[in-house]
Amino acid sequence: MQFTADDYAHRMQRAVESATAAGLAGVLVGIGPDLAWLTGYKPTAVTERLTLLVLIPGQPPRLVVPALERPDAAAAPGAPALEMLDWYDAADPYHVVAPLLRPGGRYGISDSTWAMHLIGLQEALPGTGYHALSVCQPMLRAIKDQHELARLAAAGAAADAAYGEILGVRFAGRRETEVAADLAALLRKFGHEQVDFTVVGSGPNGANPHHEAGDREIRPGDAVVLDFGGLLDGYGSDTTRTVTVGEPDDEVGEVHAIVRRAQQAAFEAVKPGVPCEEIDWVARQVIRDAGYGEYFIHRTGHGIGVTTHEPPYMVAGEKQPLVPGMCFSIEPGIYLPGRFGVRIEDIVTVTPDGGHRLNNTDHGLAVVS
Amino acid sequence: MQFTADDYAHRMQRAVESATAAGLAGVLVGIGPDLAWLTGYKPTAVTERLTLLVLIPGQPPRLVVPALERPDAAAAPGAPALEMLDWYDAADPYHVVAPLLRPGGRYGISDSTWAMHLIGLQEALPGTGYHALSVCQPMLRAIKDQHELARLAAAGAAADAAYGEILGVRFAGRRETEVAADLAALLRKFGHEQVDFTVVGSGPNGANPHHEAGDREIRPGDAVVLDFGGLLDGYGSDTTRTVTVGEPDDEVGEVHAIVRRAQQAAFEAVKPGVPCEEIDWVARQVIRDAGYGEYFIHRTGHGIGVTTHEPPYMVAGEKQPLVPGMCFSIEPGIYLPGRFGVRIEDIVTVTPDGGHRLNNTDHGLAVVS
Repeated sequence: MQFTADDYAHRMQRAVESATAAGLAGVLVGIGPDLAWLTGYKPTAVTERLTLLVLIPGQPPRLVVPALERPDAAAAPGAPALEMLDWYDAADPYHVVAPLLRPGGRYGISDSTWAMHLIGLQEALPGTGYHALSVCQPMLRAIKDQHELARLAAAGAAADAAYGEILGVRFAGRRETEVAADLAALLRKFGHEQVDFTVVGSGPNGANPHHEAGDREIRPGDAVVLDFGGLLDGYGSDTTRTVTVGEPDDEVGEVHAIVRRAQQAAFEAVKPGVPCEEIDWVARQVIRDAGYGEYFIHRTGHGIGVTTHEPPYMVAGEKQPLVPGMCFSIEPGIYLPGRFGVRIEDIVTVTPDGGHRLNNTDHGLAVVS
Repeated sequence: MQFTADDYAHRMQRAVESATAAGLAGVLVGIGPDLAWLTGYKPTAVTERLTLLVLIPGQPPRLVVPALERPDAAAAPGAPALEMLDWYDAADPYHVVAPLLRPGGRYGISDSTWAMHLIGLQEALPGTGYHALSVCQPMLRAIKDQHELARLAAAGAAADAAYGEILGVRFAGRRETEVAADLAALLRKFGHEQVDFTVVGSGPNGANPHHEAGDREIRPGDAVVLDFGGLLDGYGSDTTRTVTVGEPDDEVGEVHAIVRRAQQAAFEAVKPGVPCEEIDWVARQVIRDAGYGEYFIHRTGHGIGVTTHEPPYMVAGEKQPLVPGMCFSIEPGIYLPGRFGVRIEDIVTVTPDGGHRLNNTDHGLAVVS
């Protein structure tokens, strides 16, 4: 089902209420995932021209938009709930926004709004304060409704289908970039409209968690980290499995078994009320106890929704308790520099009874050819 | 030829000198085109994790980077000129940057750095001031060197080749999105690694300058605005032609002739020392004199380089004089709501003797089938 103008109006209302509860005078949202989530408006390009959604309690939602992009904005599904204020080239858009704000007020502003625009607002209206939306209202998009969960489940199932097929392609003798291209094509084949990343980290490249894919030729005996995802119907997928080309050597098998235990333990720790940092701690503890603590060099997970990285983060220091409807990755890994890496990642949603996986392919160390 | 570590070191040095001349204490650059231009580093994804280039007079260039992305950053062609400072998840990256800055100092910051990061810096080091790079050092990337001009010329030639072939495809009876897909495939065929936009605005959709492409079926008699571009070897293309499906009616022909005259007049006005706003004024004057002034609803042009929109802008109020090596679009248009639009756009570079076009396809109103 498609989200309606009412759905978007409801989300904007929720954002205003959450801002008020956080002691803010309103919310400002530039082009990006928050704007897409609140209004359904996704301009084809992010340019230097200011587009800004202004949400203030007791006032209609207003979209400040470049005049030449107004027709596109007006076609967005959430547009019926918006009042449009357009501005022409050579005008100063910050002076269109300023009269809407309260001098001295504190506003939430979407994370990825350009610094240029924030500075423009700060200069047009000195004395106003700004807080990043993911800091002042981190949980605004964190709790997914049933329709959102259905989309995330569909994205996860499509990524799983892509993994199922990639196991059948040839790895040995081909470049990482070729396997990455196969993965991208499979994500599209199974319904993704956008492919965001296709990590193929073979042998020593697997020890670099954010290695994408390079010219390295994959060899028999390599461990290969496959981490891929994108958007399906506007919602994200993100899953990782580690495979080996031919039978694994003992150490790869051992490290894989540790990561698998860590992932499972963190998954079993998921239930409402548990602080996010505990999920991180549980995974980290398994890896630390096995003697590999220093080789797990990133947080355990991140929220996912209309973006692939969003609150809540499963990271030390994050006290936020889990709430049913939250959706995030659990992705511990061990990275042995110069040698290989192993990561296992599922998207998990919180239910009243505990965690529920949106990725369901086998966690075993698959052997490819 | 590829840009070398020395080229990047030289650009960073230029940025520091230009900042000093502008009275700034340094330059801060987040992920985006400025970072790519200054260091050659283009992370595969822009995420919430802070990556920031810190350029301070008398100090080596420093790149603050998430630990797990450090290996990718270290592989960038400009990396030999950089000192890397990494930070781990759960740390506060703004407190890694703060000690590098001078309390009370004023810094340039790249336009598209996330507002979240700017706020993080403002909170970590109260009293520092920030100015958008395109405002405080607008001409930093504006004057292209010979190697950059060669890349822009290659991108323009490839876009021209795509236009040459699109004239041979069928328009009538197909959807705008299908012709847009053809254009995208042609841009890739002729060497683009990235397609940024493929506007196909048929009939009334052409009257919306930023209409991308929709489900409308193109009909005999339609005027169709084709505006497309992307990146080839890291540098941008952007060209527009308006065609008609079968013979044009008289009004389309007349409006097209006016836009063509406006584009030619603005092109002929290009020479060193002329203020940017004069290029806008010259195009606008032709259209105004013909009685269509109110239907030319955007500026006449924008700079182009590693992005498709950058200073200098050909817009009322921009006093910057043209300098040899500058590169920008000249793209007047007339948009008749509910009926049709016409736009003609070339990328033009400034030489000591005047303008030189990087797009050279015929300006006549081409007839397609």
